[in-house]
Amino acid sequence: MKIFITSAVAAATLFTGSLAYAQDDFSGQLKARQGQFRIMAINLGILGDMAKGETEYNAVAAQAAADTLVAVSMIQQAPMWPEGSDEMSIDGTRAQTTIWEQTDDFQSKWADFGSAAEAMQASAASGQDALGPLMGQVGGACKACHDDHRAPAD
Amino acid sequence: MKIFITSAVAAATLFTGSLAYAQDDFSGQLKARQGQFRIMAINLGILGDMAKGETEYNAVAAQAAADTLVAVSMIQQAPMWPEGSDEMSIDGTRAQTTIWEQTDDFQSKWADFGSAAEAMQASAASGQDALGPLMGQVGGACKACHDDHRAPAD
Repeated sequence: MKIFITSAVAAATLFTGSLAYAQDDFSGQLKARQGQFRIMAINLGILGDMAKGETEYNAVAAQAAADTLVAVSMIQQAPMWPEGSDEMSIDGTRAQTTIWEQTDDFQSKWADFGSAAEAMQASAASGQDALGPLMGQVGGACKACHDDHRAPAD
Repeated sequence: MKIFITSAVAAATLFTGSLAYAQDDFSGQLKARQGQFRIMAINLGILGDMAKGETEYNAVAAQAAADTLVAVSMIQQAPMWPEGSDEMSIDGTRAQTTIWEQTDDFQSKWADFGSAAEAMQASAASGQDALGPLMGQVGGACKACHDDHRAPAD
């Protein structure tokens, strides 16, 4: 599908005389941003399994997972979300155009994830009981952004 | 290719009676760790282009890229590198078995990247001239690990 779009854009540039869009291949940015969400998922999985008692609580592992969530929250987002890398323009992403239309809201919701990650970092090592509410806060931040800025799965 | 390997493993489990390997699907871990390298590449690209004068030096953008390199260096690596996710065992990775055979060396080289990222963070905003040597240090850390733990490209 990307190949088709790229060809269409390349054809369009023959008419406009501009090469700007013909060079746009966002596969690197997509892998980068989707990779960061995988890192989040892996570490939320570690914490969630402990919260549910599916794996034994381990303070060191919980802290490392929480520290990693904070690390991810410190990754600057802008270079991974170039204009034109939305789900209406390219294949392989569920990023809605609202991300670019309401950038402040998107950045604010990303900052909310950072706050939730910091709360997790502060208390993840204090015991299994703490994890549930902390997971709820992180999950709420994830959901708030997904609700507004991620297209439904196919 | 993964499908074939999975089938082969599934067939093998019929003989061993174990299901352990049949459940191993490392696609999430691969996307996570390859994503983090993409994040590094994007931000090293920003800094490298400034170092070479291909884009105008911008202290704020340089600092943000350097901060992101440090953030990536703070991501815990272990959960993304499960045993059996090497290039001899699965498709789609160049991770050599040495990563698991010489884990201390792998972690040490990852820590060297962290040190180089911190050096970049400390001086990236001090001017374009600083970027070249700092890029060299980061690049050296990348290369040291690739030389020992990444299989050549096909």
